[in-house]
Formats: sequence, C-alpha cells, structure tokens
Amino acid sequence: MWERKLSDYKVGESFMAFFLIRKAESKTTAAGNKYLDMIFGDSSGEISARWWDCKEEDELEYVKNTLVKVKGIVAEWQGRKQIKVEKMRAANEQDGVNIGDFVPIAPWDPQDMYKELHEYTMKIGHTGIRDLVQFIICESGERILTFPAAMQNHHSVRSGLLYHTLTMLRAGEKLLEVYDFLNKDLLLAGIILHDIAKLDEINANPLGIASDYTMEGQLLGHIIQGVKRINQAARNTNLDARTAALLEHMVLAHHYEPEFGSPKRPMIPEAEILHYLDIIDARMFDMKKALEQVEEGEFTEKIWTLNNRKLYKPQHALVQADDQEQEE
Amino acid sequence: MWERKLSDYKVGESFMAFFLIRKAESKTTAAGNKYLDMIFGDSSGEISARWWDCKEEDELEYVKNTLVKVKGIVAEWQGRKQIKVEKMRAANEQDGVNIGDFVPIAPWDPQDMYKELHEYTMKIGHTGIRDLVQFIICESGERILTFPAAMQNHHSVRSGLLYHTLTMLRAGEKLLEVYDFLNKDLLLAGIILHDIAKLDEINANPLGIASDYTMEGQLLGHIIQGVKRINQAARNTNLDARTAALLEHMVLAHHYEPEFGSPKRPMIPEAEILHYLDIIDARMFDMKKALEQVEEGEFTEKIWTLNNRKLYKPQHALVQADDQEQEE
Amino acid sequence: MWERKLSDYKVGESFMAFFLIRKAESKTTAAGNKYLDMIFGDSSGEISARWWDCKEEDELEYVKNTLVKVKGIVAEWQGRKQIKVEKMRAANEQDGVNIGDFVPIAPWDPQDMYKELHEYTMKIGHTGIRDLVQFIICESGERILTFPAAMQNHHSVRSGLLYHTLTMLRAGEKLLEVYDFLNKDLLLAGIILHDIAKLDEINANPLGIASDYTMEGQLLGHIIQGVKRINQAARNTNLDARTAALLEHMVLAHHYEPEFGSPKRPMIPEAEILHYLDIIDARMFDMKKALEQVEEGEFTEKIWTLNNRKLYKPQHALVQADDQEQEE
Amino acid sequence: MWERKLSDYKVGESFMAFFLIRKAESKTTAAGNKYLDMIFGDSSGEISARWWDCKEEDELEYVKNTLVKVKGIVAEWQGRKQIKVEKMRAANEQDGVNIGDFVPIAPWDPQDMYKELHEYTMKIGHTGIRDLVQFIICESGERILTFPAAMQNHHSVRSGLLYHTLTMLRAGEKLLEVYDFLNKDLLLAGIILHDIAKLDEINANPLGIASDYTMEGQLLGHIIQGVKRINQAARNTNLDARTAALLEHMVLAHHYEPEFGSPKRPMIPEAEILHYLDIIDARMFDMKKALEQVEEGEFTEKIWTLNNRKLYKPQHALVQADDQEQEE
Amino acid sequence: MWERKLSDYKVGESFMAFFLIRKAESKTTAAGNKYLDMIFGDSSGEISARWWDCKEEDELEYVKNTLVKVKGIVAEWQGRKQIKVEKMRAANEQDGVNIGDFVPIAPWDPQDMYKELHEYTMKIGHTGIRDLVQFIICESGERILTFPAAMQNHHSVRSGLLYHTLTMLRAGEKLLEVYDFLNKDLLLAGIILHDIAKLDEINANPLGIASDYTMEGQLLGHIIQGVKRINQAARNTNLDARTAALLEHMVLAHHYEPEFGSPKRPMIPEAEILHYLDIIDARMFDMKKALEQVEEGEFTEKIWTLNNRKLYKPQHALVQADDQEQEE
Amino acid sequence: MWERKLSDYKVGESFMAFFLIRKAESKTTAAGNKYLDMIFGDSSGEISARWWDCKEEDELEYVKNTLVKVKGIVAEWQGRKQIKVEKMRAANEQDGVNIGDFVPIAPWDPQDMYKELHEYTMKIGHTGIRDLVQFIICESGERILTFPAAMQNHHSVRSGLLYHTLTMLRAGEKLLEVYDFLNKDLLLAGIILHDIAKLDEINANPLGIASDYTMEGQLLGHIIQGVKRINQAARNTNLDARTAALLEHMVLAHHYEPEFGSPKRPMIPEAEILHYLDIIDARMFDMKKALEQVEEGEFTEKIWTLNNRKLYKPQHALVQADDQEQEE
Repeated sequence: MWERKLSDYKVGESFMAFFLIRKAESKTTAAGNKYLDMIFGDSSGEISARWWDCKEEDELEYVKNTLVKVKGIVAEWQGRKQIKVEKMRAANEQDGVNIGDFVPIAPWDPQDMYKELHEYTMKIGHTGIRDLVQFIICESGERILTFPAAMQNHHSVRSGLLYHTLTMLRAGEKLLEVYDFLNKDLLLAGIILHDIAKLDEINANPLGIASDYTMEGQLLGHIIQGVKRINQAARNTNLDARTAALLEHMVLAHHYEPEFGSPKRPMIPEAEILHYLDIIDARMFDMKKALEQVEEGEFTEKIWTLNNRKLYKPQHALVQADDQEQEE
Repeated sequence: MWERKLSDYKVGESFMAFFLIRKAESKTTAAGNKYLDMIFGDSSGEISARWWDCKEEDELEYVKNTLVKVKGIVAEWQGRKQIKVEKMRAANEQDGVNIGDFVPIAPWDPQDMYKELHEYTMKIGHTGIRDLVQFIICESGERILTFPAAMQNHHSVRSGLLYHTLTMLRAGEKLLEVYDFLNKDLLLAGIILHDIAKLDEINANPLGIASDYTMEGQLLGHIIQGVKRINQAARNTNLDARTAALLEHMVLAHHYEPEFGSPKRPMIPEAEILHYLDIIDARMFDMKKALEQVEEGEFTEKIWTLNNRKLYKPQHALVQADDQEQEE
Repeated sequence: MWERKLSDYKVGESFMAFFLIRKAESKTTAAGNKYLDMIFGDSSGEISARWWDCKEEDELEYVKNTLVKVKGIVAEWQGRKQIKVEKMRAANEQDGVNIGDFVPIAPWDPQDMYKELHEYTMKIGHTGIRDLVQFIICESGERILTFPAAMQNHHSVRSGLLYHTLTMLRAGEKLLEVYDFLNKDLLLAGIILHDIAKLDEINANPLGIASDYTMEGQLLGHIIQGVKRINQAARNTNLDARTAALLEHMVLAHHYEPEFGSPKRPMIPEAEILHYLDIIDARMFDMKKALEQVEEGEFTEKIWTLNNRKLYKPQHALVQADDQEQEE
Repeated sequence: MWERKLSDYKVGESFMAFFLIRKAESKTTAAGNKYLDMIFGDSSGEISARWWDCKEEDELEYVKNTLVKVKGIVAEWQGRKQIKVEKMRAANEQDGVNIGDFVPIAPWDPQDMYKELHEYTMKIGHTGIRDLVQFIICESGERILTFPAAMQNHHSVRSGLLYHTLTMLRAGEKLLEVYDFLNKDLLLAGIILHDIAKLDEINANPLGIASDYTMEGQLLGHIIQGVKRINQAARNTNLDARTAALLEHMVLAHHYEPEFGSPKRPMIPEAEILHYLDIIDARMFDMKKALEQVEEGEFTEKIWTLNNRKLYKPQHALVQADDQEQEE
Repeated sequence: MWERKLSDYKVGESFMAFFLIRKAESKTTAAGNKYLDMIFGDSSGEISARWWDCKEEDELEYVKNTLVKVKGIVAEWQGRKQIKVEKMRAANEQDGVNIGDFVPIAPWDPQDMYKELHEYTMKIGHTGIRDLVQFIICESGERILTFPAAMQNHHSVRSGLLYHTLTMLRAGEKLLEVYDFLNKDLLLAGIILHDIAKLDEINANPLGIASDYTMEGQLLGHIIQGVKRINQAARNTNLDARTAALLEHMVLAHHYEPEFGSPKRPMIPEAEILHYLDIIDARMFDMKKALEQVEEGEFTEKIWTLNNRKLYKPQHALVQADDQEQEE
Repeated sequence: MWERKLSDYKVGESFMAFFLIRKAESKTTAAGNKYLDMIFGDSSGEISARWWDCKEEDELEYVKNTLVKVKGIVAEWQGRKQIKVEKMRAANEQDGVNIGDFVPIAPWDPQDMYKELHEYTMKIGHTGIRDLVQFIICESGERILTFPAAMQNHHSVRSGLLYHTLTMLRAGEKLLEVYDFLNKDLLLAGIILHDIAKLDEINANPLGIASDYTMEGQLLGHIIQGVKRINQAARNTNLDARTAALLEHMVLAHHYEPEFGSPKRPMIPEAEILHYLDIIDARMFDMKKALEQVEEGEFTEKIWTLNNRKLYKPQHALVQADDQEQEE
C-alpha cells in the first residue's frame, strides 16, 4: 500500500506514485491543444492534476475510477498544489497495488463487521422478526460488504453502510440498558433495516464509490423502497401483517420530519430512538472528520451538512490537562 | 323516504319522524338522573336532541348509527333548536325506511359510477397498466361502491371515493385534449389509483360513514399503503418494475408537499397534473357545499379546510343578468 | 429562414450564418487587446462566441438584439462549443432574413391567437363584463400580439402572453363542463385579465424579448397594476363597483399565496380555479420544454422554476407500446 | 356624563345607571323562559348582564349599540360580577346623556386632531402631493372624525384612525430631524394616506364602533383600496404618474411582509420608515393599554396582538426613585 | 400512605380519604350560594370535586396545595366522576400522612440520586471543571433534591430535575464508550449543568410542585440564567475564561434551535450529543408515561408535547412471544 | 490626505499614490512566476491590483492593512479597472499620510461622539443604572473610539459603533417626547449597552477594521456576552438584581426574533422600542449608502442586507421641485 500522504508532497518535487482517478475531463487550451483535467485521490485525500501532453485516445482510457501509475512534478496553481503529469499508465497486476487502498474506507474490516451484524441479528428473540431480517440481509448479497451509506454526506465511504449500521447497533444496545421498557427486537431490527434500501437507491461500484441514484431511487427514495422490501419479505417469511407494519413504520419514520422524507413521525418509542441513534451517528462521523482537519484552538470552515455551522476544536491542554495527572 | 328538511321544523312543534343517531352520550343531571345527549341526522343535516326520561339500558341500545323512530317536540337551548324526545324506538323493516336516505351521499348512483369507472379503465391502452388497475379494483371488492373519500374533509360522503375519482377522470380526460403531450394511460391509471388505499386506511361501515383510522392507516397512511398495493399487484400481474415505479411515484407524489404526506414531488408531468386535478376537485366540492349554505351577496363563515378563508357568493342579478337576455 | 440547428455544428467546422446577438460585452485580454464576448442565438438555442480582432467602434454597433451575418469557425472552450468570429456585419434588407425567426416563439400564429381571444371575449354573456374586457384589450393595442408572458420563467417567448392566455381559456372552458356551477363570464374574464398588466410591468421590444422591469412594475407589480387597470376601465365602461371588485379580486388573488404576490387568497370558486389553470399551464409549458431536451429513460438537470426538481422522461417502449397495437 | 367606573360596583349593590349595549342575545332557560344575555359597556369597560323577565318584543328593541337606562343589582356568576337587570328602557333626549361617553375613545379631541392633520398637510411643500392629500381627506368627509383604526386590534377606539395618524406624524416629523436625507413630503403624505382606506374597508357607525368588513374590504383589503384611491385621486388632481406610483408604493409596502398584506417590500427609505412608524405606534398603544391593567412588579396575561407575549410592569420604586431626587 | 387508586372509586360510593388540593376556586350558584370548585389529587391521579355547603371563610383555608381529609360521595357530572364533599378538614400531624405521597414523584429516591450525582461529578478528571460543577451544585442547596424539571412538560414531577439529569448521565456515559473521541469531562459537566438554572427560572414549593415562573425566568429564561451562573462560578473558582466559555456554550446551545431558545447551535461534538441526550430522555419519559395509559393494540390520544402525535402500543403477544420461549 | 477618488482614474493612466492593502494573496502564473494579487483601498472605495514582478520576500511584507506608496498604471481586466503595480514600498512617517484616511469612517469625529455619549449617560436619572452604564463604558477603554459596529453589515466603518449608538440615542430621545409613558433611564441605558459587547465578539484593529470573530464571539455571540457584562457590572456597582435583569432583558431581546439571536422577545415597551430604533438606524445607514451609488430615477442592484431588495432613487425634480419655490 501507498503510505505517503498527499499533504506531505512539496511544491517542486518530482515523484512516482499510484493514484485513483476521481474525476477526468478533457479540455482544450486557448491554443487549441487537448489536455486532461483530473482529480487524483488516494486514501489520504485528493489533489488536482493536469496532463498537458495527452493524446486524443487518452481521454477514453483514463476515466473516473481508473487506478494509474503516475510520474509527475508538484506545481502550484492559484495558491494550491497541482500535479503536472509527465507520464501515466493504468496500473496492472504486476504493480501489486490494492485498489481498495485508494478510496476512503470505514475504519473496521468488512468481514468483521458482517460477522458482528450477524451476531446482532441473532440477538433478536422474536422468530418472525429475526427471519425477516435474515431474509433481507441474505437477499442483499455481497454488495452490503462494501456499500457506502450515502452519495456524499456522512458515511459516504467504502463499507460505510455496514459501519453506520454497526455503530448504531452498539449505541442502541447501550441505550436499551438505560431505557429498559423499549422492545429490543423491534429496535435492533429497525436499526439493521433502516438504510438497507440504499442498496436499491444508489448505484455504487465494488469499490464502494457511489456514482448516482437509480431510477427508482429518484422516483421513490430509499425510505419507500425499504418499506416495499419489508412488505415483500414479510410475505416471503410469513410474518404477520401487524408486526410487519411496525417495522415498515420504523423505516418510514426514521427521518422524522416530512421535509426530510418521512411522511409519518414516530408513533412507537422504538421508532423515536431509532431516529436519534441515526442522527447522532451521522453527526459524530461528520464532526470527527471535520475536526481532524483543524488544529486545536481553531474553528473549521462552515460545514454544509451541519447547517453551515463552524465547529471548534478545544485546546487539549485546557480541557484535559488534569485528566492526565489524575490518571497517574 | 323522509322528505322534510330539519330546517323546516318550528320551535314548539310536535312531530314524529325517523332519524339516524350520529352521536350518543349518556349523561347525568345535577339531580343525578340519567339522560341521553344525542345528535340526530338525516340527509338534510343534523340537530341536537335530549331524552330526559331514558332508562339505564337505553344507553346500550341507542348507539351511534342506529336508525330510530322518534316522537318529540322542538325546543330551544342556547339559541338553537333542540329536539326533546318523548318516545323513541329502533326502526324496523315494517317501517320501510331506507337507511341510505339518512347519510350524506354523492349525487350520482354508485352502480352508474362503477360502470363509468370500468369504461375509463378500458380506455387505458397499455395492457400491463390496464391489467394492474383492473386487478386492484377487483381486489377492492364491493366496498368501493359506498366508501367515503375521507374521514371529515372533502368528499366525506357515502360513495365519495368513487365520485371524487370520476369527476377527476372527467376533468383529466378534458385536459388531455389541451395538453396532448401527456401520456393518457399513466394519467388515467394514476387518477384511479391515487386514493384507492383509503380503503385500507379508514374503517367505514356499509353506510359509507368513516369511523376511524386503521392501525396501518395511522402508522403508514394511504399514500404508502397505495404504493405497497401497486407493488404487490405488479408482482401478481407481471407488470415490469419500471412501469410500476412510475405508477407508485404518481401515488407517492400526489399530495405534492412533504408536509402533506408526499416525500417526493412530481417528476413526470402526469404526476404533476394528477396533483392539481385532485386539489381542484376537492376545492370545488368544498366550495360548492359551503356556498349552498349562504345567501347571495353574503360571506360564509371561515372554512377550516380552506385555510380559514371566508367565501363570497356573488349576486346572481349582478353577474349573470345579461346572460339570460342573451340566451333568449 | 435559417433551418440548421446549433446542436448540429461540429467542432472545427467553418460556416456562414445569421444570428441574433443575445448578449455582448467588450473585454480586454491580458495582453491589453479588446475583444467582444458574445452570446449568439437563433430559434434553436444559444452559443457563446468571441470576436478577437474587433475594433473599438464595433462595441457600439454590435449590441444586444442586433441581427448579424457571421463567418466563423466552431472552436471549443472548457468543454463547450464556442464560435470564433472571423467576419461579422449587421444583416440588411437584402439578406432577406426575418428577425422573428431568431427568437423563441410561441407555437401558434399571433393573428390566429388574437382572433381566438376575440372569440372567447364574445362568449362572455354579461354585457358589462364583456365591455370592460374589450376596453382593456383595445387599450393594450398591438403590443399584445408579440408580448412575452414573463422576464425569464414560463412562456418568456415571443407572443407568450397570448399563448399562455389562450391555453388557459381552452382548459378553463373544458373544466366549466365538469364544474358547471361556476360562473362562465367571471372565469373567462378573469383568465383574459389575469396577466394583462404584464404589459405595464415589463419592458419588451417588438421582438417579444423582455429586457427589464418598468419603474411602476418594480414598485407595484403586475398584480396591483392589473387591479388599477380594471378599476379605471370600470369607470370608463360604467361597470358597477361590486362586479368590478369581483374581477379585481380574481386578478389580486391569482398567485394564491401572499409570498407570491397575492395579498388575498381566492374567495370565490372562479378565482380558485383561475389560480390552478394558471399554474397548470405554466408547469406544463416548463415541463414539456425541459423534457424535450433529454432522452427517454433519463432525468433532466435540476430545474430552478420547478423547485429544483429533476424530471424523468419515461421510455416510450414501456409505457406506450400496447397503445399502438390497440389502435391498429 | 356618567362618572362612576364599572370596577367600583360592589356585589349585592343596587343601582340606576346608563349603559351602551355592546352585545345582546336572546336565550331560553331550561324551563323554557326567554331572557336577554347582554354585555353592557361604558367608557370605563364592560360587564355582562342578564334580564330574566324580558318580553318577546324586548329582543327586537334592545339590540347592539342601544343606549339604555338600567335599574339593577350586582350579582356574581362563575366568580365574576354580572348585572341582574330589574328594569330597562332606551335612553331618550330628556336623559341628557351623551352617547359618545359610552364608547372607548381616543384621548385627544377629534376637532383638534383634524386641525392638526390639516396643519401637517400644509407642511407638504410639493404642490402636487399636497393637492392629492387634500383631495383624499376632503373626499373622506366627516367620517374621518370618529372612525376607528381597526376592527379589534390597536386603536380600535372612536377617532382611533385620526389619533393613530397624528402620533405617527409627530414621531415622523421628529425622526426627519435625525435622518435628514429623507424626503419630508413623501413621508408626511405616506403617513396621512397609509390607512385612509380603512374608511372603505370597515363598516363603522357614527359612534366610531366597527361592526364588520365591507364586501370590497374582504375581497381586496384597505391596502389595495388605498392604492386605488391614490390612483383615482392622481387622475383628478393631475399628479404625474411617477410621483403617484411612489405614493401608491408607500401604501402598498407599509405592512412590509407579504403575509401581512404587502406584496412589495419598501423600495424607498421613506416607505421603510413609514412601516416602522406604523408598527411602533401600534405597539406603544397596545402596550400602554395592557400595562395599565396590571400592578407594578407583575406580568400581564399573554397578549394575542403581541404574539402571545406577556408584558412586565417594572416597579416604579426601583427604576425611577433617584429620578425624583435629582429633579428636586 | 394512601394506597387506593382514584380510578377504583365507584359512582355512588361513600368514602373517607386524604387528598391534596391541586386547584380551588370559589364560585356562586345561580341561586346565589357559594361553593368550592376543586381538583383533588393523590399520586395516582386527579379528580374534580365540589363542596356545596361551604362557608365564606373556607375559601381562604382550602387553597391550592393543602392536604385535606375528606368525607364524601362519588357523583357523576357530564359523564365524569366528581366528588361531592360532605365534610372536609385540613390534615394534621396526628393523621400520620406523608404529603410527599400525594404528588407525582420520580421513581428513584432523592438521596440516592444525589449520591449518584456526586459520584458522576467525581468522574470529571479536569480539576477546574470539577470544581466549578461542585461549586454550582453546592450553591443550589437542598432545593435540588425535590425540584421538578419543568412547569408542565416532561419530568414535571417531584425530584424530576435530578431524575432527568441522572438518566442523561447514565446514557451519556454509555455513548462515551461508542463515541470515544468525545471529551468525557465536558460532556458530564454539560449534562449536570444544562438545566440547573431551572432552579432560578421556576418557583416550586418543597413538594416539588412548580407554581409559576420567576420574574428573571420570564425575562431571561433558564438557558441564559445558566450561562450567567457558570460565568459567576468561573470567577469564584478561577476557571480560565476559555474553558468556561465551552461550558457556557454547551448550556447555551442545548435546545439546538433558535426558536426553542438556543441562539447558537452546537459547535463542539459534546454540545451536539448533549442536546440529543436531553431530547431522548424527555421523549422516553413522555412516551413511557403516555403508553402506560392505554391498552395493548391501541393508540393514545394526540399528545401535545409530541407535536400532537398519537402513540401506538404494540401487542405484547405479537412482538415478544418468542422471546419468552427463547429465554426458557 | 489623498483627495482623488478611485473612480476618477482612467484606463491607461500612470500615477503615484498611497493605498491601504485590503487583501493580499501570493499566486503563481502558469509559467511558474510568483505575483501578488491584491485589493487596494482608500476612503473612496476599492480596486484590484497585481504586482507581477514581486520577490519571494514581498509576500511577507505587503500584508493586509499595510499602508503603501505605489507607482503604477491603470489597466483593464475582464471589463474592470485593475492597477498594474510598477513600484511599491511601505509608507513611512516622512510621507506624512494619515492611515485613518484610508478606511471608511463614520461622518462624525470620535472625540465629539464620545463627549456626546457621556452627556447622554448623564441624562440617566437613576443613580444605579447610570453607575452601571459608566462602569461598562469605562471598562471598555479607548477601543470604543474606533470600533466598527459589525463585521460587514451596517455601520462596519471606523467608529461605527459610536456613530450607531449616538444616532439611536438622538432618535430615542425624540420618540420619548411622543411616547412619554416610557422610562427614559431604561431606554437610554438600553441603547448605550445594546451592542457594547461587539467589543468582545469581534477582533478589530485600531483602524476600526474588523478582521474576524473572537472564540467567545463565535461560541456565545455579542448578545449573550452583553448580558454577562451587565451581570458582572451589576455585581461591581451593586445594582439590585431586578433592575439589572431589566437591562439584561433589553440587551437579550433587542434582535427581537429567535432566529436573529434573541431567545426572548421584548416584554417591556422600552425593549420593544429599542429594537425598532436599532433596526431603523441600520436600515437608514444601509439605504443612504446604497442610494448614494445610483443616479436619480434608477434602481440599485439587489442588496443582500435588505433581503435582496432593490432600492429606487426618486427624481429630485419630481418630488421636490415645488419645495424650492415655496422656500423662496
């Protein structure tokens, strides 16, 4: 795996490296020459790149999501670093690089997560609900291992759907200890199913990169598609209609507000808490990611997914100093 | 049928008549005596009534939606007419009264409307869509003949669902002549299906009186239930998934705004016009009904279903006088 | 008339053609040379153009809405086609081109539409209302033949105002058959008058191209200006004040929501349906136009005038196949 | 004039007094006897009253806004004082009472206010604007002397319209000293005209009591009616159209927000400040009145016209004590 | 302690019992006789009561929050049970009743909760933050033991403030295990302090019953009062200004939306999660309470504090049956 | 002082002049050469500038807010004037220029304004309130002389805070004459204190140019910081808590709407009028400034701070002609 971070590159430096093409557009200079305007990425981030001396046919070869080996130099344009490509070719098997290393990924291993998901499923005591959940997971197949949880918001990383589901399951299990009147089976099933129809709403490749929405995804959305899935699965697993309606309601209500896609607000406490587990997990993911990009004592830029709020990163020295002492 | 209007009754008058009990509550006087506090109705309207000398067991017999024969006198209470019941018994077959005459009903005959609905279905040229529509109508059975279109808003009358659907079909067919780029099959199917799941959302008796919402109706609503119905019917009639998605989308989007229950706004023009046909028909029904209750040159009370607007009834003499002349 | 579409031009191709200058701006290169940055248009669309070797005085001659004869070559800039002007001169009478062919126009002939408008006016039975409508049409003069219906939204094409009014009249006449309790005279008059004061709100040239708002248009808006017009016309034609108030109310309420310019919501059913006829016609125009620009099975871009919705164009094969068969 | 306040009456006390009937409704007791349920008022407030032994014909005589002489006793009902009428007759000329003393009135004399209004008119330097203002005041006639400024909100008192206009003129004249770039003529004219069409919107009797809205008032509203008035007056006084449009705009924009009736927001600073003068005057009137009804150190009830806010009345001792000392 | 529930009383039954007067109003009958209209309560609920034969002075003695011994009979009025008081006297020490048994109380013992609160305080590692939290708890004194968390919403029960704080601390501690990048000290301190100024905002008696808002509570609100408290405590405990600002921000932002009282939205993740812990705890409390009042398979009434939602109580047999089996 | 306006410069002209650097960014050309992209300003406005031949170290010297002497030529870029720098050096004492002449400034002298502020303070009769106001002014020190009133909205000029406060005091004093029931002391104090914590919210240099928000400013905002300041000052000056709460409330409520930062709406009339004085002054400032930039008879561009309204500048000849005559 490629271990150097993009932020480590210095202007003026020559290098040879592997990148994933995130975006590629063929353009023409004022002088009428073709060039490729690209964005390269690896797991550490993105950088813009230009290949001035490309040929006509290069446009067709070096498309989005191609893994390439690049010889280049780090230039600067409008105050930002930009790679000037000198040579470029598609990576091949002999290169021994793993394409999975070039996309942002969830921090846990997909197989481990899948196993943990299965364990949570087994914690559902109600046979009918458990059968339905297993039916739907089974029906989803291998795609669930790498699928992202969104086009571009929170958890839009490889295996983001699994990761989002599992942190919610962990948090949900813990809150069940505090709010012990809640029905565990409904809550666990609701968490597992709430975003499962993202698989039907979004087109994503095996790298876990979402490209666009499906036709049904646009016209109906993953919430309605999720309700349809449960409805069909209930017929296939003979779950009684009233219990199926509870699960459908949980999925239907999990965005809480009509303007965010839920025509009904939660009418059972398990649906209520499902919504808050969802939003807490999304916010913690986005905030953690945003704060990793600023220094202590600084504010981030305005963040679109957080209603254009800026976040503040407190100074470790201030808020945690004594902590250390005490621990000693 | 009972042909005298409730508004014709005079204070002080004695009478014998048939009524439907719309509401009945057992109460106790300050002196500790039981009495029945009721609302009587016939097809011309409603009036409050009290039976002061009732017995303990009467409370159980004279419940909501019972058809009764009443001997009474017209009194006045707080400035309004109120019936003082002297004698009362349940109507029986010998009385020869038709319970259907005591509830507000759509102005057209249910059987005629059902026939016209069938004719519109046959105008759908696309075999797959037509089959699906027929499957769903068939599946709905006889209830469709008398079902109201709502709990308490527009078209909440016996056979209101059929009546609402048919006026929309007529208006839709006419607009198809003006906007001829629209797909006739999608629009006709969309109109027929848009409210069909009210049958699943509302509990109504054979009189066409809605009593309350079903458990599924509360948790999901008729829009989502309609989507589920189309999804199931498409599997049963082998309609391809993309065409089914178009029909599901039309039902899903027909309330237009998220806060009115549609998580997606119309994305095809047929869905757009379906929404406007729906709202025009609802408004015309409510406005016609409200204006029938005031004199020319007067305003109605504020009407809740019309955002608390008052309506004005222009003076015929002013706006139509010349019309008459011209016609002669 | 120039019959080739802008989309047919190939990059690299030389050509000679007529265009209307839609926009022209004089700019200076880094090297200090003047050039004209323009947008050319014909009835098929628009394209950007640059004239690198222009003279100082060209800036004054080649202004917005000039019809020009151009010799040029099709270049590419930032992934889009752009015309590189080699020679350019103003079109003259000898060229025999019709300036009307270079702006987007309504699909029906203005004179035919004007005649149909007259026929609808004659269908108004109430003498006073008919006189007022005729007075206002007459007062508006010839401008009504070519006037657009808007600055940049729906029907912002030559003769758009007449076209919009007539499709609404046709649709309104049809709905009067379904909702026969409505007053025909009020509705027809309301449709004809609802946007008539756009003539006072917008400055447009004889080509039917809107350039900007008038001083009164900015300070008052066409709704209020329309009310004033009816008020004055009623004095001139001796229409009684109450009937005039009904017409003024219809114009005042036709945008329905305060935030869209209507301080009063409709209080008569004719005003209610006027609003919906207006919005249906606007939406059908915009949707038809947007869908003409994508292929079957595709979504459009987000459309600003439709709350940023994307539209979907169903596949003809799917939704209409059987239709064909049946018709045979 | 009757000088005793309603709040001075003691329960159990017998009295003879004059009142204005504010509201009167004929009701029937459980025992079937008629009685009149009324609200009496004088300039100090209101009190409920019942006349148990009234005759059939009394209902027709003792209607709203009748001035009556009453012999009665002060009873209590549901914790509140209520007058039990023993004898009642209409007041006559011999009684020597002034009906004007029985309605809430503005604190300044109508004739003085009319004179001051005239003086402000004369301060308008621009002949055309001054003529138009005078034309409209003249056209309004004597009704302006007693007219209230509203149905039930701020300044809904006799001569409230004049009073509201004059306090705004005084405040406006003062702010012109601070913001001296404003056009005095536009501002003074705008203030005088902004609510003048309340005379057309509301029906009020010579007592200055508003009863209901006019037909035009409901369908158009005083803002639009005011614009129409200026438009007509400009034609009568030959004011140029552009200046008239400025005045129309000021009236049109004075409620500021579309949802409060202004389709355009202020586009000249004089219109902007007109709005704030209007709202300040309304708020000060309502707040002063509300605070007069509570003790120092207390909160009022929630006030509907102030977005359901409660107001607080500070303790004089706290906030003003030293003031006194200093003045000595 | 009084162990019989109010719902167990039968109409017609005579009884002797202790109640707390929740509300008392002196009224007068039509016949002019005084009576007391009261609401009695114990820990099981409330019931209306009337004392027809009371004396003038009783009004002063039997006021809100008096504990009384009552001899009476259960009557019925307007379909509801109502106590007819025969004899009544204030409870005295000899009666041996505990006033605390007559108000709704939190389910945990106040002293235990106070102890647990202390333990959580000690888990704060940062000395400065811990000192400030202890200073504020200490400053609050004994009132914290019984104080309710609200006037009438969630947790408006005796010791509700402590109970609400502790369930949040427990839930917060658990989520810290899942979202381990959060600063524990800030979160624990934020939870303890977020509602502490309710003590300044609300007047409540030692029974833990809130009566009204304080003058400062109305003018500023507990959020702003909480910020002031932290600001003062930081000066007293010499906490650095930046850390104090973080705590102030957490309290300021905990209602999240401006319209709910937070002028700033959370800008650190600890403030974000504090908000969600607060709302989850409030919702779980309200939902649990509401569902305890309906049967399985039924919907509750519309609940005001939950945006007028109805809640549904699933049938145990359906959703939990297999659970039982599995556990065996 | 530099007396020539930026708008007077002609394209092609050479010049020597002093400017303040408002913004400076080091960029690199396609060819890899460094250049400085700057914005120059003087008190008459701003202009973009480029220094193509700068050295590496220039980037560090010529930063934001440096006063420089420039030899250059006026070029044009993308239709706008742009300065091409030939020589540039930092201004020094010998140059004899006053940095204060290069920033937008309030129209009145800071020392005069400070004196007037003091006079207003002395008009506060209540000793405790006056002491508190003086304490806070004193505590603020010299920064108050030059501080702007905002980052970028109204009054974001040198000494803008003082200027804004004083025009409000003058206007407030005048309205006190009209609405004489208002408490003068509270109103004067409220005006002086309402924005005082901008000093804590914003970082501004001695030139009166705001650069960014402080950490506390972001997390709390000047409204909450103002409340804290009053709270602390009250402790220092021994003002009683209730009177302090009134002042805190006035500051807290002065933005009126929760979404603009005021969690409480005004509950005393002095707070109500404080809000309107604030908004009137802001609007008059912004409108005056915007109208100075257009010709009579024209509309301005859309103005962001005025909800994207355009303003209209009436023609002097129309609205003021007669005025002149009359004055003669």
